[in-house]
Amino acid sequence: MGLIVQKYGGTSVADSEKIKNVARAIIKEKNNGNDVIVVVSAMGHTTDKLIKLAGEITSHPTEREMDMLLSTGEQVSMSLLAMALNDMGYKAISLTGLQVGIKTENCHMNARIVDIDTVRVKQHLKEGNIVIVAGFQGVCEGNEITTLGRGGSDTTAVALACAFRADRCDIYSDVEGVYTFDPRVVKTAKKLDKISYDEMLELARVGANVLHPRSVETAKLFNVPMRVRSSFKTDDLGTLIIGVKEMELIKPVTGLACDSSQIRIVICDVEDKPGNAAKLFNLLASKNLSVDMIIQSYARSSNNTNDIAFTITKADKEKFDEVSDEILNILNASNIHIDEDIVKVSAVGAGMIDRPGIAAKMFDVLAKEKINIKMISTSEIKISVLVEKQYANQAAIALCKAFELDGADVADVKGDLPVV
Amino acid sequence: MGLIVQKYGGTSVADSEKIKNVARAIIKEKNNGNDVIVVVSAMGHTTDKLIKLAGEITSHPTEREMDMLLSTGEQVSMSLLAMALNDMGYKAISLTGLQVGIKTENCHMNARIVDIDTVRVKQHLKEGNIVIVAGFQGVCEGNEITTLGRGGSDTTAVALACAFRADRCDIYSDVEGVYTFDPRVVKTAKKLDKISYDEMLELARVGANVLHPRSVETAKLFNVPMRVRSSFKTDDLGTLIIGVKEMELIKPVTGLACDSSQIRIVICDVEDKPGNAAKLFNLLASKNLSVDMIIQSYARSSNNTNDIAFTITKADKEKFDEVSDEILNILNASNIHIDEDIVKVSAVGAGMIDRPGIAAKMFDVLAKEKINIKMISTSEIKISVLVEKQYANQAAIALCKAFELDGADVADVKGDLPVV
Repeated sequence: MGLIVQKYGGTSVADSEKIKNVARAIIKEKNNGNDVIVVVSAMGHTTDKLIKLAGEITSHPTEREMDMLLSTGEQVSMSLLAMALNDMGYKAISLTGLQVGIKTENCHMNARIVDIDTVRVKQHLKEGNIVIVAGFQGVCEGNEITTLGRGGSDTTAVALACAFRADRCDIYSDVEGVYTFDPRVVKTAKKLDKISYDEMLELARVGANVLHPRSVETAKLFNVPMRVRSSFKTDDLGTLIIGVKEMELIKPVTGLACDSSQIRIVICDVEDKPGNAAKLFNLLASKNLSVDMIIQSYARSSNNTNDIAFTITKADKEKFDEVSDEILNILNASNIHIDEDIVKVSAVGAGMIDRPGIAAKMFDVLAKEKINIKMISTSEIKISVLVEKQYANQAAIALCKAFELDGADVADVKGDLPVV
Repeated sequence: MGLIVQKYGGTSVADSEKIKNVARAIIKEKNNGNDVIVVVSAMGHTTDKLIKLAGEITSHPTEREMDMLLSTGEQVSMSLLAMALNDMGYKAISLTGLQVGIKTENCHMNARIVDIDTVRVKQHLKEGNIVIVAGFQGVCEGNEITTLGRGGSDTTAVALACAFRADRCDIYSDVEGVYTFDPRVVKTAKKLDKISYDEMLELARVGANVLHPRSVETAKLFNVPMRVRSSFKTDDLGTLIIGVKEMELIKPVTGLACDSSQIRIVICDVEDKPGNAAKLFNLLASKNLSVDMIIQSYARSSNNTNDIAFTITKADKEKFDEVSDEILNILNASNIHIDEDIVKVSAVGAGMIDRPGIAAKMFDVLAKEKINIKMISTSEIKISVLVEKQYANQAAIALCKAFELDGADVADVKGDLPVV
């Protein structure tokens, strides 16, 4: 007899009929002889509706009260799911983050889980219950309610799987698994049977919305196998996420992702002297501005100045505008150019470590398509290039072909969630 | 500097604009130099919507999970209200029943408060916060969430007022106070400036929906003055509910109420022997059926049998149907007659204790209107009669006139809530 942690996303529990379907899928796993812990998100667009309500009250809601507000969404879906299971003749009990004892840092809206108390859940499992846990929430000192940031229910599920040494953590959503690229763009994109934690992490970080990166990090740390699968096609095994050692790396590139949430900022004519870059990025850090790609051009011989370019997320543009004058001042730069119509296209694959020439091949493919590369950044298992927005899909389609990421079958895609 | 507990009902916090209005009313009290504890209900029809959702899942939801579900409603409204106050520059913090430490019996859906921990709320007040507390909810052993039954937010407010020895407990809703009778029926019904706890209790029990009876009981026990007032007309002082000793009893009858939630059941031809009534009502009690009015007719000389008549609430009819055959059997009765088209009309007044003839006057008024009385029950400060539904309004209008309960002014009635 094993222990399975299952997580169901918002679209999987969007209405009462879907909640009943989820209950039936849980019962199937329970009838296989397993103990089951279920993590649920809020129903459908509940969280967005609550955020909208708060927006009607104030443009700057208190973070503590936002957590109080948003944590209700999961409490609704979990109690309904428990009722459905009870109604079908199964013992089930729903628990808030506080009732389980999911302890987090003392911070709101984006807290990290620091500890999970296993006593109460173990007792309920022992009594034959299916235990349903509110995703996305925990408590810190003084029983203050905290949330884990958007997509945090994935993290709740993996953290529970680690704490209870579960045999597997199944993440159910409206996608059938992890694809080599968004099948809505490349119809022949392939569903992957397996992917390594590191590849999934890189893909999650560069724009694939299948999983919350923190959940993959945690699963990797504790070596818990995760499975991304569809709650509407429970016979399909989806994609298994495991350690790289357990995989055969046949191809250098496993998947592609596009990220259109960034903007490029170029600080022009910065004097080329030591410490200027440090000044700039320290200032940005002090304003809590996360910078992604960075390029510093060679000093021009004529006037001994540099251009410094970097990307930030669109959501941070307002914050950046507040410090742009200060930046011009301290760097003695001529002007700041902001480019919003850009997309970061990334190729990810653990197989590229031992194979030289993958970056060169990528640049070559784009050159043949006459697509200009505006910035480049690489890691051990990832190459990202910044291109103009209008060429993003063309780039992705050409790269899918070049790296053999497409298949013969046309993907059957449902739902709204972007896939890899 | 005093301490005021305020309670706002669902219609008072039905949308974001109304929540902002409530925030402004709270600030007014705070700026008067008072500490303020605020109790809120769920927004508008939230609770009904949640009950409907549960109904889509199952016709017999688990009570524990219903409490888990319904307690989210207040958590939403209280966090939004705290945000509104924060946005207006005031320190405010919202707290769940658990966070306050509102301890209840170990029972779901209709738990009684057994203790309130004052430490945390006192600390927040000391720090200058307006403290907002979720109405209707508490916790029992093991941090299990419980609710206090419908209208329980009134009880939360009064219990807090008692625990913190508040100077006053203001119950804000969409009615302007307690009226002598429903002003939608009798346009000239008068708003009462004062009413005693006992009268308010009797009126609440016989159909006036202004206040939850348990809240009035608690206020009476701890002698906390309550005020029923409109959240849309905060300058109006509404109706003060206080001890009878502090009132001048000018009129014998203070108010009238109609209750159309009952049905009359007549068990015909029960043999007139000792123990039969006991058998009947013990059986009903064992099925958790609450009986209100009871009449046993004189034995008929011809066959030495009685008719036993009583009223139960419409909601319990299904439960009654399950035992009706057993009743016929054990009482050896001929048949059971059920009358659904009845209304209980009650006159309430602490002034009737010392004045004989009030009941006689009531019967006389109804006789002149040619309205047949089907059952009568009385208490020290109340006379109730059962009449056919079609005559209920006519009876109320005539009784208002006879007992001087109408005034020259036509009441300005808003909102949906029935008033006394």
